[in-house]
Amino acid sequence: MQLLETLKWRYATKKMNGQAVPQEKIDSILEAARLAPTSSGLQPFKILVITNPELKAKIQPVAFGQTQIVDSSHLLIFAAWDKYTEERIDSVFAHTAAERGIPVNSFDDYTTRLKNMYLSQPAQVNFEHAARQAYIAFGLAIAAAAELQVDATPMEGFDNAALDALLGLPEQGLKSVTLLPLGYRDQENDWLVTQKKVRTPKDELVLKFA
Amino acid sequence: MQLLETLKWRYATKKMNGQAVPQEKIDSILEAARLAPTSSGLQPFKILVITNPELKAKIQPVAFGQTQIVDSSHLLIFAAWDKYTEERIDSVFAHTAAERGIPVNSFDDYTTRLKNMYLSQPAQVNFEHAARQAYIAFGLAIAAAAELQVDATPMEGFDNAALDALLGLPEQGLKSVTLLPLGYRDQENDWLVTQKKVRTPKDELVLKFA
Repeated sequence: MQLLETLKWRYATKKMNGQAVPQEKIDSILEAARLAPTSSGLQPFKILVITNPELKAKIQPVAFGQTQIVDSSHLLIFAAWDKYTEERIDSVFAHTAAERGIPVNSFDDYTTRLKNMYLSQPAQVNFEHAARQAYIAFGLAIAAAAELQVDATPMEGFDNAALDALLGLPEQGLKSVTLLPLGYRDQENDWLVTQKKVRTPKDELVLKFA
Repeated sequence: MQLLETLKWRYATKKMNGQAVPQEKIDSILEAARLAPTSSGLQPFKILVITNPELKAKIQPVAFGQTQIVDSSHLLIFAAWDKYTEERIDSVFAHTAAERGIPVNSFDDYTTRLKNMYLSQPAQVNFEHAARQAYIAFGLAIAAAAELQVDATPMEGFDNAALDALLGLPEQGLKSVTLLPLGYRDQENDWLVTQKKVRTPKDELVLKFA
């Protein structure tokens, strides 16, 4: 099974070698993230793709100096909507209606329910929900990279507020949630590459109710 | 590319036909979730596998009557740790040390930093973090099912507290976050199966900083 082989191959690369990932592979990784399922199909996040060396150099200290930020060829930043709004919800369903060739008001009952639910909640609750959706896409991007034998480092260890300020995300209604540098492992200098992958045993992780 | 084909094939199945998914496929789907990367490798969740028909019938009303709960052959429930604790963190790293054949105290500096961070945060903040990790595994389980041509319905629409009470999750320090019924589409009676899959266009979802 391709996905299991893919997941066994990957690891959280600690040292990259600076080699560039072909654009075609980057596009496929982004496409996997774009195809990720999300709650009500809202896709409440953006993916920033950073290739500019000066900008990566500014991001590195915000990510506690992690070298993959600058040794990757493409740095993906997953940033979730800071809250749900009527306009954001309407925009998604207007697009879906247009793509399906049905009247724009086809989803009115559904979007009314969504708005009643989300718009009555604090922005932080909505953001947490949006962030969870971004994690689905984040996971699929990691899997896509691995299938293409592109190395990646899933990262939560950075100063979110500082990164948001650096990139002007608050003005766009976004808050960063994860980073994913993409590149190639430095086989000689990555201490983790030789370590055994360890996971919780299946009989501890899985509880059966038969 | 296998993953992209897989993601295009799948959809959130609205009506299942009751046919049973072979155990071997269920095992592969669970294995993909088990191999998912998580923050610090903590895997702060469990996956419940419900096949008992009486229990599924009790869960259906808690999930607002959705028929996939009872028409699926296996219902997966992703439940995140309600908080991080010293014991939980130590247990994960004791296992990793044992698997790698290194002294149990090898990770002491690292786990001390983790404990200082997590144990000073409110339980709800820790739970939200654990839930995000569960979403990575949830996404990979969805992809694994699709690769095996098993249908699945990612679900957040259920009464979390009622489900937790029904399954005794609070006593196990767990809180449900998502459901994933696994089965096969009812091709004739699922209204969604013929609808075009719609996603946010790439140039809206992806922001480039070159």
